[in-house]
Amino acid sequence: MSAINRRQMLGLMGGAAVVGLGAGSLGVTPVQAASMPVETTPFSWTPRILDPKEVQPIAYEGFYDRGFGCGYGVFYSIIGTMGKKWGAPYNSFPYSMLEMGKSGVSEWGTLCGALLGAVSAFSLFWGRKDRDPMVDELFRWYETAAFPMYTPPKNAKAAKLNEISLPTSVADSVLCHISVSRWSYKNGIPAQSKERSERCARITADTAKKAVEIMNAKINGTFKTTLAASDVRKSCVAEGCHGGTADKYASPTLKGKMDCTPCHTGSEHVQNKMVDHP
Amino acid sequence: MSAINRRQMLGLMGGAAVVGLGAGSLGVTPVQAASMPVETTPFSWTPRILDPKEVQPIAYEGFYDRGFGCGYGVFYSIIGTMGKKWGAPYNSFPYSMLEMGKSGVSEWGTLCGALLGAVSAFSLFWGRKDRDPMVDELFRWYETAAFPMYTPPKNAKAAKLNEISLPTSVADSVLCHISVSRWSYKNGIPAQSKERSERCARITADTAKKAVEIMNAKINGTFKTTLAASDVRKSCVAEGCHGGTADKYASPTLKGKMDCTPCHTGSEHVQNKMVDHP
Repeated sequence: MSAINRRQMLGLMGGAAVVGLGAGSLGVTPVQAASMPVETTPFSWTPRILDPKEVQPIAYEGFYDRGFGCGYGVFYSIIGTMGKKWGAPYNSFPYSMLEMGKSGVSEWGTLCGALLGAVSAFSLFWGRKDRDPMVDELFRWYETAAFPMYTPPKNAKAAKLNEISLPTSVADSVLCHISVSRWSYKNGIPAQSKERSERCARITADTAKKAVEIMNAKINGTFKTTLAASDVRKSCVAEGCHGGTADKYASPTLKGKMDCTPCHTGSEHVQNKMVDHP
Repeated sequence: MSAINRRQMLGLMGGAAVVGLGAGSLGVTPVQAASMPVETTPFSWTPRILDPKEVQPIAYEGFYDRGFGCGYGVFYSIIGTMGKKWGAPYNSFPYSMLEMGKSGVSEWGTLCGALLGAVSAFSLFWGRKDRDPMVDELFRWYETAAFPMYTPPKNAKAAKLNEISLPTSVADSVLCHISVSRWSYKNGIPAQSKERSERCARITADTAKKAVEIMNAKINGTFKTTLAASDVRKSCVAEGCHGGTADKYASPTLKGKMDCTPCHTGSEHVQNKMVDHP
């Protein structure tokens, strides 16, 4: 494997910082930049092959580490493991930034933080043309998978409930709100419970494994998307009215790739809960 | 303002990388770390006061820069401007990573990428205890604001449509899918159009400004949340059944802080679109 090269380091650090470090100026006043920093080589980090089985326990433990959660767990298991094996630039990232993924970004229930951690890792290596199909594969897998899958080892350091068996549910959505609330509703387990946290710790391991499998295939030149959009989505978008441009489509107002089913099939969950609701 | 100190640089770089750089080893084989990299001081970057008016045009131009989009635009306008003024560590970040925020994370329509860029910047400085109220304030502002607000200068370098007037709509949600599709639906402008892109470029500037205002208040010790959750949400969660723990609440299955209204009040948009749909 090649070491980090000068081009990458310049891309990473910005000229001023590299000059400062080269002059041994750690701890003294940094060089003042005269203009906006320029990232000369975007997506310049070199991706590395990892063992999917190796990252799983790291992701699981990372979830519980200082309560940093799912986004940190997935990201640290991938980029941190690269840092362990290959040093810079992988060990230079301020990993705690990914704690923001917790509970769908600072508790808001938007994108599942485990997925955010994975996409964040992808994005150090690949721009949107290469990355978007990888994200599609990962997100479609998540929408249709029955979580959790991972079984933590009995001697896991951080595990709170590592020996119990947990019920599963299909996430149905990449949104934390739907993924968690469906699981809680189906299984009668509160969203704010140790069992639900343990579910998400295991999903952190599941997602890290899947993300590394996708990355490895990309690096090896064998990656291709295998999971198509749902039939519902194809009907609404690919063959229907809501995608594309104004010329071809009747109501081209749609933004996004999420499956339409959870929110647009009139289920009991999306009816008016403000009237005659128990 | 204090310069980056040794503790922060060690926290940022990891011991092995600092040793490697100190020995002038740029471009040669990096030091192999023996164990997982340890971030000794999470959230260790020093936050800086910025001029909200100064970041707006940078965020707007950043949206169009190489098509890197909203997440990159907001993040680069904040952390890049700090890099311009104070050098390291702000100029060391691989900014292109935030391109992933585009169109609600790699086109999926989940969390608005402009918000993701802002939370990512917050998260370099503040852990969840300090950050979550800042995020609440930013996200509630976004849910209720009529976008876009920003008017780009006529001489803006990157602007495609900088002199046109755009219609507005209340986002109603922090999700890109709802924010964009509502605007397109209300105003009859395709989601895949230059006008819609220009809307999002302006929202990138709007969000950068609001994020900096919140950060400045936090740094000055004057920050407090001013925007409460909607009455609907209070009814469902704070005074109702779906939050808290099992002991107190009847159906504690809820995860997240998004307003309930868009998806749980039975609007025409969430009825069954698979049956008798034109």
